[in-house]
Amino acid sequence: MADPAPLAPGWAVSRWFNAGDGLSLQALRGRVVFVHAFQMLCPACVQHAVPQSLKVAAAFASTDLAVVGLHTVFEHHHAMGPEALQVYLRENRIGYPVGVDAHRGGDPEAQPLPLTMQAYAMQGTPTLVLIDRGGRLRRQVFGLVDDLRLGAEIATLLAEPA
Amino acid sequence: MADPAPLAPGWAVSRWFNAGDGLSLQALRGRVVFVHAFQMLCPACVQHAVPQSLKVAAAFASTDLAVVGLHTVFEHHHAMGPEALQVYLRENRIGYPVGVDAHRGGDPEAQPLPLTMQAYAMQGTPTLVLIDRGGRLRRQVFGLVDDLRLGAEIATLLAEPA
Amino acid sequence: MADPAPLAPGWAVSRWFNAGDGLSLQALRGRVVFVHAFQMLCPACVQHAVPQSLKVAAAFASTDLAVVGLHTVFEHHHAMGPEALQVYLRENRIGYPVGVDAHRGGDPEAQPLPLTMQAYAMQGTPTLVLIDRGGRLRRQVFGLVDDLRLGAEIATLLAEPA
Amino acid sequence: MADPAPLAPGWAVSRWFNAGDGLSLQALRGRVVFVHAFQMLCPACVQHAVPQSLKVAAAFASTDLAVVGLHTVFEHHHAMGPEALQVYLRENRIGYPVGVDAHRGGDPEAQPLPLTMQAYAMQGTPTLVLIDRGGRLRRQVFGLVDDLRLGAEIATLLAEPA
Repeated sequence: MADPAPLAPGWAVSRWFNAGDGLSLQALRGRVVFVHAFQMLCPACVQHAVPQSLKVAAAFASTDLAVVGLHTVFEHHHAMGPEALQVYLRENRIGYPVGVDAHRGGDPEAQPLPLTMQAYAMQGTPTLVLIDRGGRLRRQVFGLVDDLRLGAEIATLLAEPA
Repeated sequence: MADPAPLAPGWAVSRWFNAGDGLSLQALRGRVVFVHAFQMLCPACVQHAVPQSLKVAAAFASTDLAVVGLHTVFEHHHAMGPEALQVYLRENRIGYPVGVDAHRGGDPEAQPLPLTMQAYAMQGTPTLVLIDRGGRLRRQVFGLVDDLRLGAEIATLLAEPA
Repeated sequence: MADPAPLAPGWAVSRWFNAGDGLSLQALRGRVVFVHAFQMLCPACVQHAVPQSLKVAAAFASTDLAVVGLHTVFEHHHAMGPEALQVYLRENRIGYPVGVDAHRGGDPEAQPLPLTMQAYAMQGTPTLVLIDRGGRLRRQVFGLVDDLRLGAEIATLLAEPA
Repeated sequence: MADPAPLAPGWAVSRWFNAGDGLSLQALRGRVVFVHAFQMLCPACVQHAVPQSLKVAAAFASTDLAVVGLHTVFEHHHAMGPEALQVYLRENRIGYPVGVDAHRGGDPEAQPLPLTMQAYAMQGTPTLVLIDRGGRLRRQVFGLVDDLRLGAEIATLLAEPA
């Protein structure tokens, strides 16, 4: 029998948007979580992954799926700070919670890769993550995923008991 | 409490392709069935619905989903006969079973709408049908359906117990 | 100095649609002619080339560009006869002239490749042909052409003096 | 007889990228100029207009068409400064000249609309501008333009004598 999937690492977020006092993966236990890690100036993110995430949020609005963006900036930090991100979120009408992946000591110059990105061993952006109701990391994909398969994967996790 | 969905009507097929001795809905009981009703000269079928059905067949190849085409010719019968359909299936590399919806008395001139199309009260082509493991008609859509939502709907039915 | 382009071969057409008493390349001398050779059951024709030709007809409607379809059937002749083509043209709302490429002796079984297809040495379908105001064959492409480049090529020929 | 098109206003640019010591409309007299005015955080610009401009640059690389980007920031100035733009250009592999539309007195807070945008009476971004070999403003479109028609319009201007 296959080993169960490992628990998904918690998120290290220095600032949240659209999330009131903030959000933790722990607090979402019991729900399926769709995370898309992106950078606001990464072309494939902007042209494909973010529009797809907006479609996911709309298509699953009547379910208890949690859609979460993670701004995993690992390059050009000066051009993708929180103020720029705030504009990006507004211009793209992104209403779901988006967290800024934190850097060790708050200093991206010292260590360019942010902490959550490291914890998940992400290879770049966009990266898509699916976490099940039990908090387990069930899927992680660097790059683009077809709509048909993505819809199926999310629905499969939603159908699992808590 | 909502009434359960009605049983899907059986298929009246005058000729099968890619199905050996033929296929019946009854014989598929226990499996989820994705049916796409099309006409080989209907532009929306050819440009959108058939390519999407081929994607469905590929994306769910590792599941027990049954993908079935139904050639529901209700106009221009002389141009969309079984020989023409056979060419269409080969040219488009369609490998799943496709049935030719039968006409009453085998005579499309007397009654243009074929029998299965009538039994499902389809309004035109393309029409997409989803049948659950219990043989119940769970979804019927005339026109186009978004990939993301379609993937989710199929997976939701696949996750239900037989 | 480059040799001028050769004159485009005349068309051998057994039947015209949307062309009154018929059409000849000679009669179009003085105009730029856009020809798309297609088969009504060829997937790339149906999904890409024919929709593009309809867009060309609309985009250049205010010019003297002549848009002409050529049904160059070289396989599965029984499934793509003139009656089937007529349905195809109506269903796809094709209003520009379309000619059926003729077979030697009217017999596709004896020689599958039709005569115009042979005269142009076409390799298959779809094939796009551009003929200038002087009747010269300026461009012939087997396969798909990008909209941006196609628009530019047509406009370049339109801008040439007669 | 129609009046000739007016001369296109000169550009007020505070900083150039990919343009050595800079560029002026006057210096391009004799060439056709394709200008796309954009903002790096405007979704329609990023998803459609900039990719189309890159396609234009590639498709007309063998002609003397000048492709020029104009960063016409009229909102959220703090998030779209020249350093952020530089990152955007590099990430999107934009190699043609891009100018930053200048603000009166260098102060976007005092007057949000930049000077070139004002001179052309642009209504927003993206805006596409076509200037002929004589320096005349022949076309200005706010929003998206179809590839086929755009290719034709550019080629038509390229075919005109200087």
